[in-house]
Amino acid sequence: MKAHLAEIIYSNSLTTTNDVRYLTGFVAPDPVLLIINQNRYYLIVSEMEEGRAKRETKNKVKVLTPKSLSLNEGKLNLVRIIQAVLEKINIKMLITTKDFPVGLYKEIEKKGLHIRIKESDINKKRRRKNNIEINNIKQSQQAAIKAMKAAKNVLEKSQIKNNNQLFYNKRKLTSEIVRIEIQKTLLQLGCIGLDIIVAGGNQAVDPHERGTGPLKANQAIIIDIFPKNEKTGYWGDLTRTFCKGTPPNELNKMYKTVLHAQKAALQNVKAGISCDQIHQNINKHFENSGYITERVNNKNIGFIHGTGHGVGLDIHEAPRIGKSGDVLMAGDVITIEPGLYYPGIGGIRIEDTICITSKGYDSLGECPKKFILN
Amino acid sequence: MKAHLAEIIYSNSLTTTNDVRYLTGFVAPDPVLLIINQNRYYLIVSEMEEGRAKRETKNKVKVLTPKSLSLNEGKLNLVRIIQAVLEKINIKMLITTKDFPVGLYKEIEKKGLHIRIKESDINKKRRRKNNIEINNIKQSQQAAIKAMKAAKNVLEKSQIKNNNQLFYNKRKLTSEIVRIEIQKTLLQLGCIGLDIIVAGGNQAVDPHERGTGPLKANQAIIIDIFPKNEKTGYWGDLTRTFCKGTPPNELNKMYKTVLHAQKAALQNVKAGISCDQIHQNINKHFENSGYITERVNNKNIGFIHGTGHGVGLDIHEAPRIGKSGDVLMAGDVITIEPGLYYPGIGGIRIEDTICITSKGYDSLGECPKKFILN
Repeated sequence: MKAHLAEIIYSNSLTTTNDVRYLTGFVAPDPVLLIINQNRYYLIVSEMEEGRAKRETKNKVKVLTPKSLSLNEGKLNLVRIIQAVLEKINIKMLITTKDFPVGLYKEIEKKGLHIRIKESDINKKRRRKNNIEINNIKQSQQAAIKAMKAAKNVLEKSQIKNNNQLFYNKRKLTSEIVRIEIQKTLLQLGCIGLDIIVAGGNQAVDPHERGTGPLKANQAIIIDIFPKNEKTGYWGDLTRTFCKGTPPNELNKMYKTVLHAQKAALQNVKAGISCDQIHQNINKHFENSGYITERVNNKNIGFIHGTGHGVGLDIHEAPRIGKSGDVLMAGDVITIEPGLYYPGIGGIRIEDTICITSKGYDSLGECPKKFILN
Repeated sequence: MKAHLAEIIYSNSLTTTNDVRYLTGFVAPDPVLLIINQNRYYLIVSEMEEGRAKRETKNKVKVLTPKSLSLNEGKLNLVRIIQAVLEKINIKMLITTKDFPVGLYKEIEKKGLHIRIKESDINKKRRRKNNIEINNIKQSQQAAIKAMKAAKNVLEKSQIKNNNQLFYNKRKLTSEIVRIEIQKTLLQLGCIGLDIIVAGGNQAVDPHERGTGPLKANQAIIIDIFPKNEKTGYWGDLTRTFCKGTPPNELNKMYKTVLHAQKAALQNVKAGISCDQIHQNINKHFENSGYITERVNNKNIGFIHGTGHGVGLDIHEAPRIGKSGDVLMAGDVITIEPGLYYPGIGGIRIEDTICITSKGYDSLGECPKKFILN
């Protein structure tokens, strides 16, 4: 039976695009079909992409186009293409995952082909990074570290003037100026920086707020750098929080609490540890230190996000370090990024990306953790 | 009946992510649920995204979180969230589009809720750009034009040395150097340049090949710049082909043929014209000039891609200027980008992004078309 069952992926979703890249090596700007039968991969691309697909894909991948399947081009008919491939490999049953588009699923059923849904095992495969992948992530993480240094340098060279305004090269220092400095550094290192976060004061209280406008002294400034290597497609992820000038005591205490939580979490990670446990430990530490996570004035405050996530071809991938049921395994590359967010005080987040081993973790690059910049 | 039917979108696909952005204003790095009932939008985000979602969304959007729906967080259960929203708005029937993930679709059915698939009308809505959108695209297009100028400047300042190698600032000129120059220019203009193409000689024969390594004199170099504005999310798209030095006669003739085809197409576009017709006219012009599109040695050569595509929040969106059945309408923003690709000779592509009107088109920015650079 097993030989008569092929797996099908249509790369229209954020996850499946990188699943196809992971399995075949092909980078598609537009959705493509991938059919897998007994460890043989049939990648169906447009005529235009054929040459590039043949060059970029791995050995076990057979690149097909509508023309090579003897289908007249015209308006692309995915079901006819699927039928043609299945005839070619003499298969009548397909399995796919829950991400598959329902329209195409129903069209396949209509044609009398059998298709059913199974749990995806690609996520699990993708979690266990091999040495090439770890080196790719390390390369992006090193770029993030250099970009962080460039950002820190801008803050250090800035001057504090009236009303706590920062000035750099005689201009008001803004989130945008620091972000461009980061992005330029990343470009020189072969990486792209999309939606990099440079958020100060109350802006940083929303963890995904990119930050805009003037940066001030004596406030926390969260800098979250996640570069994607343009060639390999692998990401890095690094966050530091800085204060130019003198932080209020409560902000300083908050920084130390987050730093302590991150160190403790890093000391405890290793293969076999439950992700939920790591997250709960940090939660407890925050609560014991007086930092309660709660809803006040219709806003969540405290430790309002997960402790981390997997990093690879996607910036957010499995496992999820939180209430996910996931258990760490050797080869997981994850972030550990506790944070605290209180309106009126500010946001603090400290994040590193590490590779889990049986005994603990391997660092993918060291970056100083210095809060106060003079 | 109509009042009891709500539309549901899950933004896990490349298209639906921007559908949600288009409809609500919210930019989601991770998939979110959107339920639409009688022109009222219910956007369901995580607790962490709540504040940002409330700030970024338009008036008619109600931001909900699992907590605000009285659901205990934990492992996110999408069906329970959907049930809770439907109870809240007193609706039992859902419609969605064929992009919807089949797993979630089946889970919804299992719960006794009715769900069915319809043709998406969002594509059609998204095609008709309003003035704000046109200005957003114009802004990205202007950035592309300035970046093209910067790239041209590098080529002009380069020197031709032995073996047709180009040198810039005493270093071998490479695709990477030109690409970084383009990307830096885009950053200064608030745009990001992902997968920008700088491909010379035979590399340019594959239209989506980014280009790598040394650039040579007397060859065609395709530069395809598609910037995304980091704030608005709208794209621009611009391609020019240059030759540093002296092109062989056949390459020069090929350039003139493509240039003529693009001019002719631009003269003929207006609302009501069939996209297929535009594409066929170019095809005919190429054939009449002796440029046949065919398959030789297992490789497609000639005019091997469509004439263009819509541009907006997606770099490739409707309409498709080719055998798509689409008809141009006022408010369409599209590219016109004929090209010819012959191994051993090289690739030529010339592309502008324009806005279709009832009488013709509005330019979104002028960029010189000069092939030979001395």
